[in-house]
Amino acid sequence: MSFENKYDKAKSDFEAVLYRFADGISAPRTLKDAMLYALKSGGKRLRPVMLIEACRLFSEPDERVFKMAVAVECIHTYSLIHDDLPAMDNDDFRRGKPTVHRIFGEGMAVLAGDALLNLAYEILMALAGEGKEFVRAGAIIADACGSAGLIGGQSLDICDEMPDKSAMEYIYRHKTGDLITAAITAGAAAGGADEEQFGRLRVYGENFGMAFQLTDDLLDKDEDKRSFVGMFGEQAARAAVAAGVAAAVEQAEALGADAGFFADLAKKTADRKF
Amino acid sequence: MSFENKYDKAKSDFEAVLYRFADGISAPRTLKDAMLYALKSGGKRLRPVMLIEACRLFSEPDERVFKMAVAVECIHTYSLIHDDLPAMDNDDFRRGKPTVHRIFGEGMAVLAGDALLNLAYEILMALAGEGKEFVRAGAIIADACGSAGLIGGQSLDICDEMPDKSAMEYIYRHKTGDLITAAITAGAAAGGADEEQFGRLRVYGENFGMAFQLTDDLLDKDEDKRSFVGMFGEQAARAAVAAGVAAAVEQAEALGADAGFFADLAKKTADRKF
Repeated sequence: MSFENKYDKAKSDFEAVLYRFADGISAPRTLKDAMLYALKSGGKRLRPVMLIEACRLFSEPDERVFKMAVAVECIHTYSLIHDDLPAMDNDDFRRGKPTVHRIFGEGMAVLAGDALLNLAYEILMALAGEGKEFVRAGAIIADACGSAGLIGGQSLDICDEMPDKSAMEYIYRHKTGDLITAAITAGAAAGGADEEQFGRLRVYGENFGMAFQLTDDLLDKDEDKRSFVGMFGEQAARAAVAAGVAAAVEQAEALGADAGFFADLAKKTADRKF
Repeated sequence: MSFENKYDKAKSDFEAVLYRFADGISAPRTLKDAMLYALKSGGKRLRPVMLIEACRLFSEPDERVFKMAVAVECIHTYSLIHDDLPAMDNDDFRRGKPTVHRIFGEGMAVLAGDALLNLAYEILMALAGEGKEFVRAGAIIADACGSAGLIGGQSLDICDEMPDKSAMEYIYRHKTGDLITAAITAGAAAGGADEEQFGRLRVYGENFGMAFQLTDDLLDKDEDKRSFVGMFGEQAARAAVAAGVAAAVEQAEALGADAGFFADLAKKTADRKF
């Protein structure tokens, strides 16, 4: 199966589970509408696909692993809703559609984000009863998304001061990289990776995450936004993407032929051919 | 020991753990400042005290139970930060001090709330490795705080339409009652309550929560706010408080002399003598 076919199959398998799960959410009507609007607004489903495929390196992903992937997508979705708020990035559109607060109002957007974040942990706490590999995976995800991870990165990004190079790297590493790395390593933990395999996938995730975010910058035409590209120029950003991809591919190749999906994913991230 | 002494001891023991834990939070400076400002702004610490005392009915609360209480207080604190936002209740003061968004700005207030919610689950996922009673307690808390619980209640509260009686009861039950009930039942689960004891504490929590919120209404002089009192009058509210207290006391008394703390707490809630 080609990389593209494998990606698309994992994505559509995941979306089938996500949509079924989302329709079953118990919530007052408007809140549920806002949650579903965000969850069903498309996107690459990159993090859940990485989680599912990381698990598959070691064992066949079952319904529980797909639910864990739903939790990760809920967290990603909440972070986008809150990032788009007027008090943060103040974005009116995402993926070509009005943002949640434009449709449902700011208060409901805050709550829909809160509800999706909490929902992720409703899922992960329920899975924690399935065994210690699920407890470990849940803890990996929680630790990646907190004040020393995703939220910490976002908090520096909205500060008034212009970040220096180390602050910029902190933002990229945590705001984007930590949830990607957590998705891969949580999938690996659930699948039964040994410590060496787990460590390789962690290093893969860190390098992939940096290359992925820098590629986003390079594709982004909005020059007002402060970014690595804006601060250090396109050439430096392209060099950093290449370095990140090379380091990620090296880890994937060391994991053997089964990890070809991850080697391909890293190679294709520079031109977003997936 | 008198009820007041017992309450104050549990509260100060809890705050010692909370403050030590809070100082150890890893986060960029401004984000951490905002989290600590909220966590250290006082309050009754009612939910953690209830959790710790519910555990004590069955076994001595250890460091892990105090950490679980910290998680519950993080959730309560996040919910207040987000409720106070301009897009929600738009409150400038809480407990006599400026609200988080007045000091740190709206964006940082959203993130500080997000970080405290996530921190609660960092704690609970770490505790999940301690055994199935902690997994159960964590799931109780997560389920109480989601779109069918605390956030669901808040979402109805910010809707434009004037709520009818059933919507008003939904708001009170979920926005206020669910986290109180979860705190008690999570403490009971961690302490090793049997199913009958657990069930009695759940019914206690539901009735206590309703009486507690109605008392808040009765004490609240802000007549602009829609509330049970505003809709149905003071007499109906006082009758509902009395009914809730009586039902809660009945459950506490059925649990025996050790549960005297909970009987006293319910009796005193009507005049907030604690």
